[in-house]
Amino acid sequence: MNNNNTFSGIIAYPITPFDKQERVDIPLFKKLLERLIQSGSHGIAPLGSTGVLPYLSDEEKESVLEAAIQQVKGRVPVLAGVSNLTTERTIYHAKFAEKAGADAVMIIPMSYWKLTDDEVFRHYEKTAASISIPVMAYNNPATGGIDMSPALLKRLLKIPNVTMIKESTGDVQRMHYLRRELGEEVAFYNGSNPLALAAFAAGARGWCTAAPNLIPDLNHQLYEAVCSNNLPKASAVFYQQFELLRFIVAKGLPKAIQAGLKIQGIDSGYLRSPLQELTPQEYAELENILSSQG
Amino acid sequence: MNNNNTFSGIIAYPITPFDKQERVDIPLFKKLLERLIQSGSHGIAPLGSTGVLPYLSDEEKESVLEAAIQQVKGRVPVLAGVSNLTTERTIYHAKFAEKAGADAVMIIPMSYWKLTDDEVFRHYEKTAASISIPVMAYNNPATGGIDMSPALLKRLLKIPNVTMIKESTGDVQRMHYLRRELGEEVAFYNGSNPLALAAFAAGARGWCTAAPNLIPDLNHQLYEAVCSNNLPKASAVFYQQFELLRFIVAKGLPKAIQAGLKIQGIDSGYLRSPLQELTPQEYAELENILSSQG
Amino acid sequence: MNNNNTFSGIIAYPITPFDKQERVDIPLFKKLLERLIQSGSHGIAPLGSTGVLPYLSDEEKESVLEAAIQQVKGRVPVLAGVSNLTTERTIYHAKFAEKAGADAVMIIPMSYWKLTDDEVFRHYEKTAASISIPVMAYNNPATGGIDMSPALLKRLLKIPNVTMIKESTGDVQRMHYLRRELGEEVAFYNGSNPLALAAFAAGARGWCTAAPNLIPDLNHQLYEAVCSNNLPKASAVFYQQFELLRFIVAKGLPKAIQAGLKIQGIDSGYLRSPLQELTPQEYAELENILSSQG
Amino acid sequence: MNNNNTFSGIIAYPITPFDKQERVDIPLFKKLLERLIQSGSHGIAPLGSTGVLPYLSDEEKESVLEAAIQQVKGRVPVLAGVSNLTTERTIYHAKFAEKAGADAVMIIPMSYWKLTDDEVFRHYEKTAASISIPVMAYNNPATGGIDMSPALLKRLLKIPNVTMIKESTGDVQRMHYLRRELGEEVAFYNGSNPLALAAFAAGARGWCTAAPNLIPDLNHQLYEAVCSNNLPKASAVFYQQFELLRFIVAKGLPKAIQAGLKIQGIDSGYLRSPLQELTPQEYAELENILSSQG
Repeated sequence: MNNNNTFSGIIAYPITPFDKQERVDIPLFKKLLERLIQSGSHGIAPLGSTGVLPYLSDEEKESVLEAAIQQVKGRVPVLAGVSNLTTERTIYHAKFAEKAGADAVMIIPMSYWKLTDDEVFRHYEKTAASISIPVMAYNNPATGGIDMSPALLKRLLKIPNVTMIKESTGDVQRMHYLRRELGEEVAFYNGSNPLALAAFAAGARGWCTAAPNLIPDLNHQLYEAVCSNNLPKASAVFYQQFELLRFIVAKGLPKAIQAGLKIQGIDSGYLRSPLQELTPQEYAELENILSSQG
Repeated sequence: MNNNNTFSGIIAYPITPFDKQERVDIPLFKKLLERLIQSGSHGIAPLGSTGVLPYLSDEEKESVLEAAIQQVKGRVPVLAGVSNLTTERTIYHAKFAEKAGADAVMIIPMSYWKLTDDEVFRHYEKTAASISIPVMAYNNPATGGIDMSPALLKRLLKIPNVTMIKESTGDVQRMHYLRRELGEEVAFYNGSNPLALAAFAAGARGWCTAAPNLIPDLNHQLYEAVCSNNLPKASAVFYQQFELLRFIVAKGLPKAIQAGLKIQGIDSGYLRSPLQELTPQEYAELENILSSQG
Repeated sequence: MNNNNTFSGIIAYPITPFDKQERVDIPLFKKLLERLIQSGSHGIAPLGSTGVLPYLSDEEKESVLEAAIQQVKGRVPVLAGVSNLTTERTIYHAKFAEKAGADAVMIIPMSYWKLTDDEVFRHYEKTAASISIPVMAYNNPATGGIDMSPALLKRLLKIPNVTMIKESTGDVQRMHYLRRELGEEVAFYNGSNPLALAAFAAGARGWCTAAPNLIPDLNHQLYEAVCSNNLPKASAVFYQQFELLRFIVAKGLPKAIQAGLKIQGIDSGYLRSPLQELTPQEYAELENILSSQG
Repeated sequence: MNNNNTFSGIIAYPITPFDKQERVDIPLFKKLLERLIQSGSHGIAPLGSTGVLPYLSDEEKESVLEAAIQQVKGRVPVLAGVSNLTTERTIYHAKFAEKAGADAVMIIPMSYWKLTDDEVFRHYEKTAASISIPVMAYNNPATGGIDMSPALLKRLLKIPNVTMIKESTGDVQRMHYLRRELGEEVAFYNGSNPLALAAFAAGARGWCTAAPNLIPDLNHQLYEAVCSNNLPKASAVFYQQFELLRFIVAKGLPKAIQAGLKIQGIDSGYLRSPLQELTPQEYAELENILSSQG
């Protein structure tokens, strides 16, 4: 386990690949994850949205997480997705992640029935109390179906080990507000790819992204330009990758990354239904974007 | 099994009650379901949104469905919810439902990643092909996260055993459009409680509702007034129950029904976290509504 | 002036026709208005959205209203649109309308800067206090840009001569809520054409509509079926006209009515820029709808 | 007239003050405008949304513009708002502005009836053709009611003298997309105050803002930090003014600026109804923000 349990820079999200029968392909998962480490990722986040967490059985989630930790071997910190519709299952997976050696867990409140703020708070409170590693509260209404207000996020930070916020609404004003409300010491992370530049300018500590599966160099160049206070360079590098960032968000990360890897000649396996591969037109569009990006 | 596999009138949705340790309480479920039959429901739909389907494990879903079919004993048709995020699990539960004796299955496409129309279509197509009982396509973006357009719903009806549409967007214009597009022979059902009157006026064949857990007489009076072409009576009865219909939708059906039963002196068990009981103020509000409804 | 200053049934909205130089064509306006009276309209509402009120100069508004009152000659009540961005101009036109002989005025709060509830209230209060004829408060966020909540509408009704509500949000639940909140004695009117059936079922006293310019018989048959408590007939007649109602709303009333009249062989003049005539495809679509309606 | 007809940096928007009888107060307008110039504004934009353009009569618009040009005396370029619901009136005011000596005109398409892309295009095309000074196309659905897509904005730029785009949707992704689509040579301007930092990072050439009425130094410091490639300084200065920027947008620019000036001891006159002064609580909130800003 990494002794620094906070995250910064480029936190990379691997996909969960499947074989032709739609079973999780662990050996392939390890290979794809190794690529993310080799290309310089500052952290690895298995079982995120990109990793189709909600489409996996409990056993599959456990296998994927164990494989990730085994492969990472402490080289970078590991942030494990443990979100679930019920509190009981969320606690179960959070405990599993801690035991397995994850450095922190990421939790998005998932909605079928809309949850009140109190319900969301208790969901986090109970889960956080069951573990001793840090929790990243993840806000993404587009996938989870619940939009946590800045006021609720602020309240969640009163739970001792909820120490990180990941914002994926795609609204940079939300980030400004959070930063202003929560102060500079709170670590907030950007989870909206097309906001990468604006979020770093707003003070985001890290960028949670699946893009390093396809364009790690551009992602890292952006981060480095920001760190070295080179705004024109940051802006130029950002616009170089903007089209790809938009595309992968528009088409859905698991599908777009799986296709992009294939285009780059890398085995990325199959998707699990109901997700289907990109259409030929979408595939061609992605080919164009990737070739013009090089 | 009922030999008429279509549904009409008041199709009642039981809650799934839990014990104090948040385990499914099957004996209590059977009691609550029996009340729905005794009060005249024309159909029973276990494992719907009201029955917190997505919060149950596979084993729990099976127990609940078996208990429902056992309790109904063919007195009215049974519509089994079998929705799941993955196609494989949806097929699994659809097959189970057919084998267990359900008259039809209800499927809502559930979203984590937004699905394309083709993905939704194939999800229904594969599932429907795995069984021989009818399928009701259920549209409810507020819970499932996907809004199926009228055009997509029309396309789904080309799948041989997709024969029923349940619309819960709360937009009566959508129903008008569907009725106009699909013709009178297609069975469409209203799943939006506050639209009950408008939907029947628009030609809905049935009303899929949790309200009969609390106010079965008013629900049936509305249906009968419509059947007997008594618009003033239908309107008057509708306005009598309107406030309750709004309340249970606004607060979430499982929570509102569980509380309403308690207010009426009926044991309704506990909820499963993250869902929490109504607040004292909400509870008092519901008491007022129910007492003025009598 | 009609001695009954409330409105009910079919309240017809004439267009304001222009000549080729985009000047208001008063003689043509009178002809088109006479058609609405001849076909049985229960009320006439010049200077509504259909009459492109906000595109007219003060002088043009006055000419149009005077022409309307002159042509109607007291045969049916006249509801004059007097809405304006500023309170001062709204008062000016309200006073003019009263003096000219209108039976009531209709006011939609128009937004450039969003108005607070207090600002909207004072706008109505000051205007209503300047006249002694009744005021219809008109809610239509799609055109006016302000969505008045049911609570605000309820508050407006405390102003002595604000006695009528016209709801055009297209949400029948809003009407249910208003009816429930305001009681049966308050006159509410439907301004959303595709909701005509649902609104009458919900208890609307009248239907404010431009449709009688094109299909007066179907409009009146719907109203009569509702009055005679014939729900199946009302439903059947509604579905006959539903496609046209949707079309004219989707394309914009002034443009759709102007084109529809031309299709029916009636001179309807020209539009004022920036409004442009329907495209050839839209025109053909409207021809199809109108011919299948007959 | 300024010989450089493009704009950059801080483009300041004066309010239009009224006397107690709600008549335009030209002498006070000139004083307030002079303050904007003295504090270093790089351009002046009378008759914008801040200047309540749509609440003014034709004569008032002309007086305000003449007063502005007279007061500016060519020290900085003048951008005149000439927007109107009808094309005819927009052309009228555009011609007036050119004749009066404005360096460019700003046009927002105003909606009562929603306009098609073709209608918006022709509105701009006809107006632009009637003058020879440059046109800034202004997108702000929150006030104008029409959201021009990036594709439509791109199309507008084909009109020879439409050379500038002002984006006020508050969505920085829109700016990224525009910059990417239109290339670096097209001048785009930020009109959303809380996006000031993100927009400059994205490459905006200028910031169209009413904030210099209250906090000119902070506004200019932000621009200078960006120009000197000092991202940490830009970020720090931005967060210092963020709360005020949010406040003035949330409450409406004319009302918030009028109150803020009063708080700073500067006569700012009265508002025109229906706009009303900030409530005492809002006023106190603004006092707090302004005092902590200093």
